[in-house]
Formats: sequence, structure tokens, C-alpha cells
Amino acid sequence: MSIIDIIENKKAGRELTKTEIEIFVNAYTNDDIPDYQAAALIMAICINGMTVNEISNLTIAMANSGEILDLSEIAPNTVDKHSTGGIGDKITLILMPIMASLGIPIAKMSGRSLGITGGTIDKLQSIPGYKTDLDVEEFKKNIKEIGISLIGQSMNLAPADKKIYALRDSIACTNSIPLIASSIMSKKIAAGSKNIILDVTCGKGAFMETKNDAKVLSKLMKYIGLNANKNVMCILTNMDEPVGYSVGNALEVVEAVKALKGDMTEDVKEIILTFGSNMLKMAGLGDNLEENEKRVIEAIKGGKAYEKFVQLVERQGGDVSYIENLEKFEKAPYIVPVMSSRAGYVSELSAEVIGRASVGLGAGRQKKEDEIDPRVGIIVCKKTGDKVENNEIIAYVHANSPEKAEDAILKVKNAYTIIDKKVKKPAIILDIL
Amino acid sequence: MSIIDIIENKKAGRELTKTEIEIFVNAYTNDDIPDYQAAALIMAICINGMTVNEISNLTIAMANSGEILDLSEIAPNTVDKHSTGGIGDKITLILMPIMASLGIPIAKMSGRSLGITGGTIDKLQSIPGYKTDLDVEEFKKNIKEIGISLIGQSMNLAPADKKIYALRDSIACTNSIPLIASSIMSKKIAAGSKNIILDVTCGKGAFMETKNDAKVLSKLMKYIGLNANKNVMCILTNMDEPVGYSVGNALEVVEAVKALKGDMTEDVKEIILTFGSNMLKMAGLGDNLEENEKRVIEAIKGGKAYEKFVQLVERQGGDVSYIENLEKFEKAPYIVPVMSSRAGYVSELSAEVIGRASVGLGAGRQKKEDEIDPRVGIIVCKKTGDKVENNEIIAYVHANSPEKAEDAILKVKNAYTIIDKKVKKPAIILDIL
Repeated sequence: MSIIDIIENKKAGRELTKTEIEIFVNAYTNDDIPDYQAAALIMAICINGMTVNEISNLTIAMANSGEILDLSEIAPNTVDKHSTGGIGDKITLILMPIMASLGIPIAKMSGRSLGITGGTIDKLQSIPGYKTDLDVEEFKKNIKEIGISLIGQSMNLAPADKKIYALRDSIACTNSIPLIASSIMSKKIAAGSKNIILDVTCGKGAFMETKNDAKVLSKLMKYIGLNANKNVMCILTNMDEPVGYSVGNALEVVEAVKALKGDMTEDVKEIILTFGSNMLKMAGLGDNLEENEKRVIEAIKGGKAYEKFVQLVERQGGDVSYIENLEKFEKAPYIVPVMSSRAGYVSELSAEVIGRASVGLGAGRQKKEDEIDPRVGIIVCKKTGDKVENNEIIAYVHANSPEKAEDAILKVKNAYTIIDKKVKKPAIILDIL
Repeated sequence: MSIIDIIENKKAGRELTKTEIEIFVNAYTNDDIPDYQAAALIMAICINGMTVNEISNLTIAMANSGEILDLSEIAPNTVDKHSTGGIGDKITLILMPIMASLGIPIAKMSGRSLGITGGTIDKLQSIPGYKTDLDVEEFKKNIKEIGISLIGQSMNLAPADKKIYALRDSIACTNSIPLIASSIMSKKIAAGSKNIILDVTCGKGAFMETKNDAKVLSKLMKYIGLNANKNVMCILTNMDEPVGYSVGNALEVVEAVKALKGDMTEDVKEIILTFGSNMLKMAGLGDNLEENEKRVIEAIKGGKAYEKFVQLVERQGGDVSYIENLEKFEKAPYIVPVMSSRAGYVSELSAEVIGRASVGLGAGRQKKEDEIDPRVGIIVCKKTGDKVENNEIIAYVHANSPEKAEDAILKVKNAYTIIDKKVKKPAIILDIL
């Protein structure tokens, strides 16, 4: 069974066997097949799809491609959280320190930017010195001692997924449900948490554009979780517009730090409370969701959550003075306001267009070798439902060249739709499965 | 317009614009995009297909990716020949010297092995010293002085096709009609001949398995030719079983040399006569096909065709003593007979299975970096319609290791179907368009 036969089978739309999937995953992990063969197979999967069996087999093969972390010695009931990605999605940076401060051990590995959506690891790396590539022992030690560690996929956990994830980004194969489900679940299975809470983003800025797709993905991940003996909860969140007000790596860290001090937008707050209260429940720390929400608010107000984030940054080698004095983050050389060309109400702020503008500025990757500029991005001052005056500032573009700023300004303007009629704020939490 | 957007468009099944196709072709030619992005796009083309417009644009872009040869100064009415590939297809090696000896200037560039089908260039390279990478001036000089040159795509002609062709081979994308049509026609347009005769192979060992597919491909190539101001003739030939009796590089050269001396199988003879007579007509050297056939036979009988081949080999640096004494070709270390396990008549000899056996022996490539062993291959002693005794030798496997020989013997046995009932010889020429 050669890799060419496997590619041919998927190209022809046939179901791959468990063995075929294992051959591919192991060979690619070990660099026994070149990127271009993997790219061809992934494109064929992307177009022709996969059966539930194939997806489950792919997930397990990717999880087994490296070490499977055993967290039971640290804590029997860890909760892991993952987002299917969005624009301006800095929820992990805010939520995880809160949860850790409330006594839930947080062992979280995150990804890099993929397509137009950002990645938690790229964001964390805008804090000078923050090490995202701890080894297993350091990772476990931090969880044991301070209750939290946020790292990249730098350990040998699901190395197959790491390679495939990076490749997908540069071949327009990010939006495939089988590949998204297997990627997320392989990492989560390898990461060893018993409980997994998933933020399934849904809308124009997400991989899942419709609520229906988001439900399909959620059910698929719950099914894979069931097969792997994990508790999986999926919360569908609205991703028609960016989360919070900032898009870009350092910009989002700044917003997250402010949020940990209590200064957060309504949408961020709703997401934090919903996830926080459900995570406390999953971890066995309280069944009353309302009570749980109060504890989340208290963790923020009392400063415990912020302190936990500072502790995390310090422990992972980051320069804490940046967190304590957010002005220290290096600014992009060109910060240009974007003005509204009419008065009215924002009826749409396209997360997808903002995402593309942000990638164009250098906050994301066009191909996997691309470098990210942590300084650049977009600050939106107006969101759906907001009133706008003519010539009012609706956003700021943070750019590293005048040409890129120019291009981003046009895109940001296009991202906004402003109408005369009053517009209701959109719902943020769409469903819980 | 980034390459990712172009991949995304084709993945989603949209028609690519002329500009998108040119961006891809030029960027890939100049190594501005990596193989894996090209592989993803090619797989998407392979699965989702292309419109006639896209195929025409792709062909022209690939032809324009390098130099366009101008042969008008040498001869106004050159004829080029190409085969869509088959198993044991050594027709070019036999036909072209015959045509040159009859006064048609032959300027032919050939490809390497692709998938299970062989390549003329790999065959020629089994003649020690034979240079397949002449520059334009040497190429033209040879045509002017001896009336023939057979080389690889080593000049800067259709370099985009060269890269895409090699890549397709290693990602199971050889059997795509749009990619086959554009590959062939881009080379033929760049190669500068006014008249193009195409051997469109058809059957289990060919890219076109059905006569219908072969007709679709033929019409497509005629359409592209029309747009590029070329006369294109397509002859559909049967490729259910291998052509002639040998499959493998040096083995086929030996068969070709014997054929040039008049010793050829019935199928080879029929193909040579059909193509030869039609080429004379296309070149304006005689409208009567029967008369033309006689001239082809005469060129062989009189020794002119063989002499032309010797001249060609000599002129391109090959060691002529190998042609004059075929025993000089180095033999594979393991030559093993394959016996029939029953008596009867051969009702099928699968070209595809023989092709796979031959690639397994090392006569073709699994991936584009693979080296070919010129010595190995298969000699078939019985073909469809032949009578076979029990335990009679039906084939020989020429291998470079006992393990590979073993594996090939099993495959060769599987390639044969022997039944009790008498079987008619199959038709060789299926259609002329």
C-alpha cells in the first residue's frame, strides 16, 4: 500500500481504511512522505469529505502519533477548553486564568493562527520572553504549582496534527469539518483532560458559517469524544463580528489583560460567564450555573484572575512588566483612524473582512513560513447595533507600512454596513450541546 | 490575488480566470510557490475539473512559461508526434527514424515515465551516452543536418508543464483529462511544429480507460490546437494489453531496434503503418494512404530507417555499438520465466497490471525523485488470442533482486486470463479523429 494508492483512493471518493489512515499519519509524522503528497491527500479529503469512521480513525491516529499525556496524577478532573477559532477571539487568555484562580487545574495547549483566524500561541508570543514550548515536566510542574500552564503544541503531542494543521493553512483547506474535528479532538485526546469544553464559533468569521454546520461539527466531536472516553460539551457562539474590540496579537493581549481587571465588552463578558459557569460545573465544583457566574465575577473583581495571569506569564518566562504596564507593548509605526462615511446604526461588521484585513496587515499567515508582526491589527470602536455619527471614528488600523494601512482602511470600511434603522445587538451564545 | 485564494476558488468548484491561471503558472515556474501549494491546486483541478476555457488558458500559459521554438527556418511543414502513454509503448523510437528517413523533419521532445506508463526519454537514456538535454541550437542543427532529433524537455520549453507533470506523477493526478490535454498541447505548441499527430491510447493500461474518454480528450486537444493555429490529428489505439512484447527501458530499446530491422509484432506493425501513412499525408508528401504504407515498409526493408536511428544515436552522443550489438545492453541479474498454470487461450493480458509490475521492478517511478533501473522489466511471450500450453513460458521477469522478481511474477500471473474458448485478436486502431 503506497501513499500514491492512498491518495488515489481518496481522490476517487472511496472510504479510507484504518490502516491506510495510519500509514499516512505515521509516514507524514516521520517525514517519510513530502509535504506535496500530504497536501494532495488533504485537498482530496477537503473536497470529497470523510465518513464518521474515517474521521474517528484519523483522530485516533493523530493522537497516537506522539505521546498521550497522563494528567491523572496532577488532578483527576482537569477541564480543557478549545475554540474553533474566530476573529479577535482572546477568550482563552481571559477565561483560563479565571478558572485557574477558582481552583480548576488548567493544562492547555493552543494552536497558531490558521487562515483568517488568530491563534492563542501567536498572541502569547507577543509578550516578550513568554515561552510557549515547555517540555512535559515543566508543563506538569507549572500546573501542579500554580494551577495553570498555557503552551503551544511543542511537546511531542499529536505531532501529526501539528504538521497537518500548518499545511492546511497554506493550501486553503482550513474549512473542512472532518479536518477541523479530527484536529481539535486529536489534540484534546493527547492533552489528557477528562473534560473538554468547546467553543464552536459560528458565523461569517468562523470556519462554520452556519449554525447547522456548527451543530454537525459539535455532534462529530462529541461522538469522537465518546469513543475516546471523554466528556465533551460544545457551546456555539456567534462569530459574525469580531469578539471584543481588538484584532491582532499584542492588541488582543492588551484587551485580555484589561478584561481580567474587569474592563470588558458585553459580548466577551457573556462568553466568559457562560463558559466559566459551565466549566465549574463540569469540574464538579458546583451545579448551580447562576452561583457559578457570581464566582467568576468575584474572581475578576477581587483581582485573583489577573494575579493568576501575571503568575502564569512570570512562570513561563514572560516579561511581567509588560502586563503591569500595557504601554510597554511596542506600537505599530502607523496607527490610522477609519472614519464613518455616514450616520446611522451598524447593521453588520463582517468578522471575515476584518480577518482578511488583519492577515493583510501581517497579523496572520498567508503561508506557513510567514512571520507574524505582533504589533499590527485593528481596533474596532463600533460594533453591530451601535449608533454612528457621520465622520466619526469607527476603527483604528495599526500597520507597519503606509501601503498596508491604506489597503486595510479600505477593507475595514467595507466590513461595516451602516443603515438608518435602529439595529438590535446580536445574540452571542447560540446553543449548548 | 494570492495563491491561497486561487486554490480556494478551484476547491469550491469555481472557474478560474485567465489571470488566476497565469499567476499560478508563472509563480510555480519561478519557484515562487512551494510544491505543496501546487499539489493542492492540482488535486482540486483533478477532482473538480476545468472548463474548456480554463484548459485552453492553462495550455497557453504553460506554453508561454518558456521559449516558443520557431522551426519555420528549418522546415515549413514539420510533423510532431505524441502518445498519451501506454505500457510498452516504444512507437516513437520506431516511427520517428522511419519518418526522418522518408524526408519528414523530426523535432521531437518527449517526457519521462508517469504513473504506470513509460517515457521515451527514460528509454533513450538506457543507451549509454545518449544525451537527452541538447540546447536549442544543437537540436536545430541536428534536425537540419540529419533530419531528426529526439530529446527531453531540457530546453526551456514549457517549463511549467515540466514541473507540473513531475508533480502529478507523485500525487495520483496523472489521469485528469484537463491536465493531460494541457500538458500535451503546451509542449506541442512550444515545440513549434505546424502539424501534430497524437496517439491517444485507450484501455486498461492508458490514462483514458474508455473509448469515450479518449474521444473527449481528442476533441479537447483538437480544440486547443485550433485556437493555437495547429493541425491536430488524433488516432485512438488500443491499450488493453502492452504494445509489442517488452516493457522496461533497455528492453524496449532492443525491441525498437529489432523492429527497425523489420522484426515486429502485428500490433506494432499496424500502429507504425497507420501513423506513418498519415504523417506522410499531413506533411504534404502524398495523399494516398496505401501508397504511403508501402513507402514505410520500404524504408524498413531497405535499411534506411535503421540507419537513421543509428545516425540519431551517434549524433546525440550515444554509444552506437550497443545498437549494432544488442547483446551489449547490461542484463538484469535475475531473469525468471513465468509459467502458465493451465492450457487454453489468452483472453486478457492486463496492461495495467503489467505496468504496475514493471514499476514495482524499478522501471518506473513511485515518486518524482525515484531512480529508474534501465535493465529491469517484463517480456511477454503470449498476448491476447494466443494459444498457451500448461506450464508453458508466458513471460520473463527481469529483476534486480529476488524479492522484486517474486512480487512481479505474481503480478504477471494475475495479468493473464486464460480460458478454454478460442479468442479473437483485439482491434488495434480504434478511431481516427
